[in-house]
Amino acid sequence: MRATTIHAPGDIRFEEVPDPQLKKPTDAIVKVTAGCICGSDLWPYRGENPIRAGATIGHECIGVVEEVGSEVRDVRPGDFVVVPFCHCDNTCAHCRAGAQSACDQLGMTTSGQAEYARVGQADGSLVRVDGAVPGELDDELVASLLALSDVMPTGWHAAVAAGVEPGDTAVVVGDGAVGLCGVIAASVLGAERIVAMSRHQPRQELARAFGATHVVAARGKEGIDEVRELTDGIGADAVLECVGTNDAMTTAIGVTRPGGGVGFVGVPHGVDLPVRTLFERNIGLRGGIAPVRRYLPELLALVQERRIDPGRVFDLTLPLAEVAEGYRAMDERRAIKVLLQP
Amino acid sequence: MRATTIHAPGDIRFEEVPDPQLKKPTDAIVKVTAGCICGSDLWPYRGENPIRAGATIGHECIGVVEEVGSEVRDVRPGDFVVVPFCHCDNTCAHCRAGAQSACDQLGMTTSGQAEYARVGQADGSLVRVDGAVPGELDDELVASLLALSDVMPTGWHAAVAAGVEPGDTAVVVGDGAVGLCGVIAASVLGAERIVAMSRHQPRQELARAFGATHVVAARGKEGIDEVRELTDGIGADAVLECVGTNDAMTTAIGVTRPGGGVGFVGVPHGVDLPVRTLFERNIGLRGGIAPVRRYLPELLALVQERRIDPGRVFDLTLPLAEVAEGYRAMDERRAIKVLLQP
Repeated sequence: MRATTIHAPGDIRFEEVPDPQLKKPTDAIVKVTAGCICGSDLWPYRGENPIRAGATIGHECIGVVEEVGSEVRDVRPGDFVVVPFCHCDNTCAHCRAGAQSACDQLGMTTSGQAEYARVGQADGSLVRVDGAVPGELDDELVASLLALSDVMPTGWHAAVAAGVEPGDTAVVVGDGAVGLCGVIAASVLGAERIVAMSRHQPRQELARAFGATHVVAARGKEGIDEVRELTDGIGADAVLECVGTNDAMTTAIGVTRPGGGVGFVGVPHGVDLPVRTLFERNIGLRGGIAPVRRYLPELLALVQERRIDPGRVFDLTLPLAEVAEGYRAMDERRAIKVLLQP
Repeated sequence: MRATTIHAPGDIRFEEVPDPQLKKPTDAIVKVTAGCICGSDLWPYRGENPIRAGATIGHECIGVVEEVGSEVRDVRPGDFVVVPFCHCDNTCAHCRAGAQSACDQLGMTTSGQAEYARVGQADGSLVRVDGAVPGELDDELVASLLALSDVMPTGWHAAVAAGVEPGDTAVVVGDGAVGLCGVIAASVLGAERIVAMSRHQPRQELARAFGATHVVAARGKEGIDEVRELTDGIGADAVLECVGTNDAMTTAIGVTRPGGGVGFVGVPHGVDLPVRTLFERNIGLRGGIAPVRRYLPELLALVQERRIDPGRVFDLTLPLAEVAEGYRAMDERRAIKVLLQP
């Protein structure tokens, strides 16, 4: 098949690689109908994560089941499915407790920017989009379904981890695709005031379209002060930290009211947690890799009912063959998120 | 009045000091009928916290209202009251959000080991024990009411912050009075399995009496392994960290299942939070100074119905005049917690 591979920092190729094969009887092979580039794909692209030269890259996709292993019962060839980027059996003790991203059988999509992808634990992982035929869907719906493979559940996880409740004031730190999906999540979960911290006008606009009631462009101490002023000096009930840097975490904690919560989903890079501050202000902290499969049924219903449209985070669509340009566009922040069409 | 004072590390005196006075119209003066020594009083005693020579010490007490300021409406002289160690107006935005320990008017009892104590924000802070006459109560009830001024609500806060829910497996790290009250809290909140980590036999026994179903005496990696084995390798749903050291926090995080929660109430001393571990395992962390007033109505009812008996953490009762011996007994771990009778 033709797939996206990475050979070195900045060296993204679209080339012929062996087709993925069923390795276990619980696997499925999915023919990708849409894939995309994740912010986290930029780490190896920028040389910040190790690279195995020639490895396929990409973990977000939707598609049609092509082939299933002998033990797969719940999906069949021809089913149109959302592929959670982390695969899980959805039956182990961790999955039953809602921690599907810690599944005993945890796996990950490794060729989401390609023609085919192998999915482990197909019955536990895949979620069928019943009644939909891929070729007949409008672009908006395709994009929103694709967003369900990672970015929307990750933003949702930030909001759940932060403890957003109806009537809350929520703050979203980070205006990347995850942060923008975090705005959607805070809105659906009933936050009354949603402050998006963003300096970029197109992202500010999208945040407002997704439900942000306020935008704060300032950063650092100035940004914290501005949010505190907005909240009469009290701080926010729930704060979504969607970046992963120490600055973002400092801002997130700084704008949280005593007794409030911070949900963090950006993989921490150099974050130093101020335990005394957390203690003195009784600030809760929870986050991690999103248990995508846990949230999928609910989020899929919201997308199908057109109550949320996370697909709007895709502001550039390219043929899969032009994936390298997609990486460049995201790296240079010319695009929020890139959708790839095989 | 006669009060406990501290002059230097190890130098506890019982001596004459000026009577506390009403300073604000929202203050009350309480005649102390029972006070006690807190584990945190041992920090200055051991020279780990700064000392103002001759200052009164002690923040836990119950008693009878002696005098109230002109703006106090809800308590009157003669009322028998529980005095939360942290005073709050119970009306500000933080209090309304359940963060009474971050009240805009936050204060603290400073002469709980004395004949009289001043209480700020009397209407917000004090909780009347209706229908009870101090001199006519049995010792058990007095002790349990006294425990409501700090240690029981603090253990309760650990359990609430850890997110204990019915059916959970809970682990309590720390077998001091707070940890033991944490066992009570986990039990009342419905934990099915409660593991007390304790090396000391009398404390193990009390933990079992309070509802612990298992005791793990091992510490460090060995202790973590033992708890993980008890939980079929899964880990605990909710973990109460009731010490405040880095070792205790490491143990607490180590025994928490992915997606579980750690509630911490020991003031952190040298704790370095492992953000990547928290992230990778989606472990929630929340803790701080207990919002005592928030929990008091519920806990008082439990004590009055004799459904909980946190007063059993007091294993030594002394006349107030012998307070110095009380400090020695707790410092040398001869006593779990010392009750003082004026």
